[in-house]
Amino acid sequence: MTRQELIEQIFTKKSFLCVGLDTDIKKIPSHLLEEEDPIFAFNRQIIDATSPYCVSYKPNLAFYESGGVKGIIAFEKTIQYLKANYPQHFIIADAKRGDIGNTSTMYARTFFEEYDIDSLTVAPYMGEDSVKPFLAYSGKWVILLALTSNKGSFDFQLTADKDGERLFEKVLRVSQQWGNSDNMMYVVGATRGDMFQTVRQIVPNHFLLVPGVGAQGGSLSEVCRYGMTSDCGLLVNSSRGIIYASQGEDFAVKAGEKAKALQEEMSAELDKIVR
Amino acid sequence: MTRQELIEQIFTKKSFLCVGLDTDIKKIPSHLLEEEDPIFAFNRQIIDATSPYCVSYKPNLAFYESGGVKGIIAFEKTIQYLKANYPQHFIIADAKRGDIGNTSTMYARTFFEEYDIDSLTVAPYMGEDSVKPFLAYSGKWVILLALTSNKGSFDFQLTADKDGERLFEKVLRVSQQWGNSDNMMYVVGATRGDMFQTVRQIVPNHFLLVPGVGAQGGSLSEVCRYGMTSDCGLLVNSSRGIIYASQGEDFAVKAGEKAKALQEEMSAELDKIVR
Repeated sequence: MTRQELIEQIFTKKSFLCVGLDTDIKKIPSHLLEEEDPIFAFNRQIIDATSPYCVSYKPNLAFYESGGVKGIIAFEKTIQYLKANYPQHFIIADAKRGDIGNTSTMYARTFFEEYDIDSLTVAPYMGEDSVKPFLAYSGKWVILLALTSNKGSFDFQLTADKDGERLFEKVLRVSQQWGNSDNMMYVVGATRGDMFQTVRQIVPNHFLLVPGVGAQGGSLSEVCRYGMTSDCGLLVNSSRGIIYASQGEDFAVKAGEKAKALQEEMSAELDKIVR
Repeated sequence: MTRQELIEQIFTKKSFLCVGLDTDIKKIPSHLLEEEDPIFAFNRQIIDATSPYCVSYKPNLAFYESGGVKGIIAFEKTIQYLKANYPQHFIIADAKRGDIGNTSTMYARTFFEEYDIDSLTVAPYMGEDSVKPFLAYSGKWVILLALTSNKGSFDFQLTADKDGERLFEKVLRVSQQWGNSDNMMYVVGATRGDMFQTVRQIVPNHFLLVPGVGAQGGSLSEVCRYGMTSDCGLLVNSSRGIIYASQGEDFAVKAGEKAKALQEEMSAELDKIVR
């Protein structure tokens, strides 16, 4: 999906919501456990219920790998279902991969050729040659970790060098030599609303994938105040807050309601943009 | 596997060789493509031929994920084969994972419970809570990326803070508060032989997993001169240099010869240790 196509979807649907499909077999409603593929059965109903209100889906690979071969089959079926029924939705494989060049090439082959997914989250620690293989695909995106939403982000990401540049700022600055705003986004956690001003000084036009709204405590309005651009420039993810809204047979209905409520907040934020 | 068991294996076999099972369907001998599971058929023969000369195997997940469900099945069969036939070999899942706490917990469940693998490589960018879930398993190991063997390691890992401490040094220092030398190792690339002195000042006792000997150009003797401890303290990996030593029907024999040659070099290095 191109940047322009993504922007059109956002303004058409008045939403920049990404629904995180962090589907844990131990947390889904018990009546689904009778299904042949409970994970896929859950995802399918979540997707059907939330698709009018979001522009993107983000399955986190950890939740599928934990099921072994069965989990990978559920992942593949979910991707196929999305591509067949909701081809306008931007798919993010949240895998946080990154390895030496020939190995990153293998990962790129998996996610961009085998699965034909729009984008992949990538960890920056190993530098340019660990990221570049993912940028060789037209219409595909790298979403590079910059400032994450967890407590551990303080350990290394905020370390300043002798010129005062913090590691996440260096990642944002240096990685712009590898790709551009048509094939790279950055992960910036919502739990750091005040940091979005700093981020926007370095990457004024790139899309940001923003986790941490909801279960992790981030504020949507603060993210928008400092992070939104005239093209929106944001994909805000919610996982647990939507998909586990109810543990009962109404789980999909409740997930849809949660997604709709976020979409309405987002619509109001988008209305503030003067285009 | 405990640290003491690993050390015993090393001194018994006079080897600290780890064979990297980076098995690419596009690079294995063509006669194997007729097998029902070519990747596993290749691995099984490589393992049988090299097992007398190594103490560890390291499949890189990228090479298995690229095959989708079939690839994961080949991975699982390889692990089962190792555990059934070579239970003394230390198994490393080279996956370079790392995510927010609840997600790292899922990855830990996959690799340490589902697959019962000894160790997993983990990326440090997201800090403490992304690493800690892996340290909750007795007898299991985190192998944390510190200084990698690729060109991109210069991009961020060598950045010094205002006190002159470089990022990889900070990772080594800070992460010692999370685990200890019985459950953590570090990745330090062989292409940086001169850096091992610095590394050993910070982590004098931890085992180091050393990639980069062979195809990437690192020197075994230099690694040993600066990195070896009285307990050996090293696992040196070779992947492509061993497993692709021949493209013919003799691939396993040639792989065994390459492994044996490295083992002999290692034996000579171990003989220098005064215990």
